[in-house]
Amino acid sequence: MKRIRHLAIAGLCSLAWLLSMSAAVALAAEPLPSWNDGPARQSILDFVKQVTTPGSADFVPVSERIATFDNDGTLWSEQPMYFQLFFALDRVKELAPQHPEWQNTEPFASLLKGDVKAALAGGEKTILEIIMATHAGMTTTQFEAIVKAWIAAAKHPKTGRLYTDMVYQPMLELLAYLRDNGFKTFIVSGGGIEFMRPWTEAVYGIPPEQVVGSSIKTMFEMQGGEPVLVRLAKIDFIDDKEGKPVGINAHIGRRPIAAFGNSDGDLQMIQWTTSGAGARFGLLVHHTDGEREWAYDRESHIGKLDKALDEAQTRGWTVVDMKQDWKVIYPAAQ
Amino acid sequence: MKRIRHLAIAGLCSLAWLLSMSAAVALAAEPLPSWNDGPARQSILDFVKQVTTPGSADFVPVSERIATFDNDGTLWSEQPMYFQLFFALDRVKELAPQHPEWQNTEPFASLLKGDVKAALAGGEKTILEIIMATHAGMTTTQFEAIVKAWIAAAKHPKTGRLYTDMVYQPMLELLAYLRDNGFKTFIVSGGGIEFMRPWTEAVYGIPPEQVVGSSIKTMFEMQGGEPVLVRLAKIDFIDDKEGKPVGINAHIGRRPIAAFGNSDGDLQMIQWTTSGAGARFGLLVHHTDGEREWAYDRESHIGKLDKALDEAQTRGWTVVDMKQDWKVIYPAAQ
Repeated sequence: MKRIRHLAIAGLCSLAWLLSMSAAVALAAEPLPSWNDGPARQSILDFVKQVTTPGSADFVPVSERIATFDNDGTLWSEQPMYFQLFFALDRVKELAPQHPEWQNTEPFASLLKGDVKAALAGGEKTILEIIMATHAGMTTTQFEAIVKAWIAAAKHPKTGRLYTDMVYQPMLELLAYLRDNGFKTFIVSGGGIEFMRPWTEAVYGIPPEQVVGSSIKTMFEMQGGEPVLVRLAKIDFIDDKEGKPVGINAHIGRRPIAAFGNSDGDLQMIQWTTSGAGARFGLLVHHTDGEREWAYDRESHIGKLDKALDEAQTRGWTVVDMKQDWKVIYPAAQ
Repeated sequence: MKRIRHLAIAGLCSLAWLLSMSAAVALAAEPLPSWNDGPARQSILDFVKQVTTPGSADFVPVSERIATFDNDGTLWSEQPMYFQLFFALDRVKELAPQHPEWQNTEPFASLLKGDVKAALAGGEKTILEIIMATHAGMTTTQFEAIVKAWIAAAKHPKTGRLYTDMVYQPMLELLAYLRDNGFKTFIVSGGGIEFMRPWTEAVYGIPPEQVVGSSIKTMFEMQGGEPVLVRLAKIDFIDDKEGKPVGINAHIGRRPIAAFGNSDGDLQMIQWTTSGAGARFGLLVHHTDGEREWAYDRESHIGKLDKALDEAQTRGWTVVDMKQDWKVIYPAAQ
């Protein structure tokens, strides 16, 4: 009996082992299936091989395999404006009945008339005003519920898709491929940290504790005997440009070995990442596909890619040509 | 040949399986070996069983098994003063030659004469001044090297031990036990985040990205073509009292299900943790062992435990009596 059980265990175990090996072989056969063969795809495969091959001079232990990803324009689309701004505008409409004064106050009056262009003419200051009016004044728990409800239902005006269906299929494969190779993947975005966290785990496989973003201040207080965190109309941190290495240091506490972005807002993150010792990897997604997505770079007011594109040449960062390098843009419709 | 290889693989595999099973059995036989049998140890075992038993009403998925630990007085000692303050005082001595003016300026003059008590008479404001003078003005990389060198060599004045040998053996076992049960363990400390990160992975098994603490501001800049982060003499965040839930929200982005502390500085963290839905666990380490460690609570100026001790009674948090509950305090000398 003992011997039979032993053999049964050994048999099951070897079966499991063989199955896991064939799964590994299947994976190894074609990583990044939505990427065309070319220098961009190859540079990713080469880098991962370089840092994961035991005994190689560039081997990096698992605990140090940190990869950081910008979100807007790198993991999902960002046109014709940041998706968080669509969220904010929907919030303005929803909150309007509680704010009769908005009918006569800019930028809210224009927004409520549907004239987004006039409303946003004031630039960053105006956008900040809209963000504060729509993102503060509730508890963190309430805000999470608001974001979850919106992201589950709101549709992009041009594609008619859910915003979370406008993530890039090739980047989803890249995230998974890096994690399969022992990397810990983080988002480091100029977007609001609490706007992203409610859905990044389901969509990208990135848990809330691996999301870094811009934030407003919160305050702990007791409400009816229950502790809550209240969101205040006060900027805490802007996670963009020079802020990205600062945010990475604050949240992660070590330098990534790979960084992925798409705009000049990611320049300092990629500089910081690639100037560490040992093998390093920097990548820019270049929006070149006006048919399947949007085409923009040096002159764009959203996701402007100018200095970073020049620096990619001199520093040897990978530049993804979306039109050439990606077989598909978005995941197949469900 | 094929068959032989198959059998050999099966044999090796089943051996590995049997070994791993016996290790699991050994672990399961006696978790928390340095804890005496008693209500504190039992409450931990009960809670872990409750949230990890599939199908149980209180089952918590692995991704939500977040546990947060205070550091000073919870994971290592904090007497006769916070260990980070010993670090700061050693830094004052080291930097003194570059600051001749300190010979005549308080609190530095008293410190350099060895009169710590007089130097610290100014309270928090003075301590802040000492921290800023010793923790800012260098790059993050330089500061990390300074901390690493100090922590590897400096000895506690009373025990003669390295500070990292004054961590609590029962808490090391608790951290490992929780991780074995799918928990992600975080530090949430009033201490400096960049003072802890260089050594928490080696000592506690907690990587830098799972350390939350107080911080000073940093600034990204280019120095001779190299990107660096410079530490500024400016407070960024105080991770204590009401700050702990704020820090948890900023860094982790979800509410822990278990929190461990030892003082009133941990009260809000434990309130925040234990008032979430479902099974929750709060624990206070009560310093009751004046012989093997230190005994202090309501009247102490360091690690004062007063309100939180009262609240533990009414809210059903576990209180560890160090003298009764712990077989040993520190790890056996190497």
